[in-house]
Amino acid sequence: MCQLLGMNCNVPTDICFSFTGFRARGGLTDHHRDGWGIAFFEGRAARVFLDPQPSSHSPVAELVHQYPIRSLNVIAHIRKATQGEIGLENTHPFQRELWGQCWIFAHNGNLKGFAPVLSGRFRPIGGTDSELAFCHLLDTLAQRHPDGPPEPAMLFATLRELASAVGVHGEFNFLLSNGDRLFAHCSTRLTYIVRQAPFAAAHLSDRDVTVDFRELTTPADRVAVIATTPLTDNEHWESIPPGTLMSFHLGTPEALGEARTVAATAENITTRT
Amino acid sequence: MCQLLGMNCNVPTDICFSFTGFRARGGLTDHHRDGWGIAFFEGRAARVFLDPQPSSHSPVAELVHQYPIRSLNVIAHIRKATQGEIGLENTHPFQRELWGQCWIFAHNGNLKGFAPVLSGRFRPIGGTDSELAFCHLLDTLAQRHPDGPPEPAMLFATLRELASAVGVHGEFNFLLSNGDRLFAHCSTRLTYIVRQAPFAAAHLSDRDVTVDFRELTTPADRVAVIATTPLTDNEHWESIPPGTLMSFHLGTPEALGEARTVAATAENITTRT
Repeated sequence: MCQLLGMNCNVPTDICFSFTGFRARGGLTDHHRDGWGIAFFEGRAARVFLDPQPSSHSPVAELVHQYPIRSLNVIAHIRKATQGEIGLENTHPFQRELWGQCWIFAHNGNLKGFAPVLSGRFRPIGGTDSELAFCHLLDTLAQRHPDGPPEPAMLFATLRELASAVGVHGEFNFLLSNGDRLFAHCSTRLTYIVRQAPFAAAHLSDRDVTVDFRELTTPADRVAVIATTPLTDNEHWESIPPGTLMSFHLGTPEALGEARTVAATAENITTRT
Repeated sequence: MCQLLGMNCNVPTDICFSFTGFRARGGLTDHHRDGWGIAFFEGRAARVFLDPQPSSHSPVAELVHQYPIRSLNVIAHIRKATQGEIGLENTHPFQRELWGQCWIFAHNGNLKGFAPVLSGRFRPIGGTDSELAFCHLLDTLAQRHPDGPPEPAMLFATLRELASAVGVHGEFNFLLSNGDRLFAHCSTRLTYIVRQAPFAAAHLSDRDVTVDFRELTTPADRVAVIATTPLTDNEHWESIPPGTLMSFHLGTPEALGEARTVAATAENITTRT
């Protein structure tokens, strides 16, 4: 199983604290050693750092750790390979352009018997079920909305329908962003926290590191952090119910319509033929 | 004017030496201070490091300088903004996926009155003439060859025709790669060198650094380096004749057909209305 980390904010924020704990899961406190990656949106574009090396030993991770890139939307991923070789082409997050927007995607799970018919507009470069699912999502979005991005509620409805359809093939926890919103789909396991005033101190679960957000924030700041499992041990993280698509915008969840999808729980995955 | 740097090899090679000199042109020995980027192909995918900061002061450039990423194809770019704001979305090299291949593009020049009709499959994220030209190239390739990549000679012929057509709008020096071949179009200024046995020592033009390639290579190694102007002062660099498209494969130029394009020389650019 891979590890997901996302951040969505109302002011550009660095992810150094969360990344410190998250990174430790790539070979230090957990066994996800098959590469890692992180994407930072800056304006309309994204900087994507990828490394097929374990994140705990990666020089690129060291750079990201020390260089506070401020962003409104971040998606990171640590890989434990299930499908596809270990290599750059199979390292998440993946990126593509649609509607003149940069789209970023990372997946935790394993899809079986998943063979969508693609138009050819988006084709996988590597050999993962994850990149195939991403291509299928964008291919369908492009076909449904050929002239440009639809309204947020319509976009959310299309994504919910797709998450549900793909989700019957197995675990499909994912983070997806176009730099404006961050969509989080929980198929089996995903948690989040919204940090806002009054801010407090937080202590990492994976490293003995504490940060006092009161010293780093203004009262108007709002930051949502989404992760496979809680990154801190002294804060309350919300578990996203399996079978739920969420949209985060400006640091907070927003209601854009029916959020329920087909959950691929451990139970229905093991009973599926 | 921007600076281009490309490398195409027959064995994975690091670009640390050339990058040391090239990087100095981003704010130290030259005035290209409006961001920089570098793309390394690894297998079918590419790692792209982008930074809107000057390369001479960039922490990301420091990482690339110290971390020897070995690659068969590299494209780097230092920007002096002509069209488009300074920002990540306007920082070269640009990347897109076509035919399940990763494509990387960087441009030196300035296109005027260039407004191609795009199908919508590839749309610019930023506001540069360069990314627009890249989208136009890929859009046309996709339309001409919808089922997948054509044979190299056919690909070269299509690119030559496109380089010629776009070139009438102004300076269109570019580097383009799909990880297999590296295409270099000289509109006004571009040079290259092929390093192969017997290897010798080389000294940078922009920094007082010498490397003895005899200590770092095997007799079978072959590396082509392409740059806006020569990076070393004790080697012979070939000037690519203006109005020429070249294809580099496994560290050497290859003949894939007629190479001549419309040159946008200083003369015909200034007399164009």
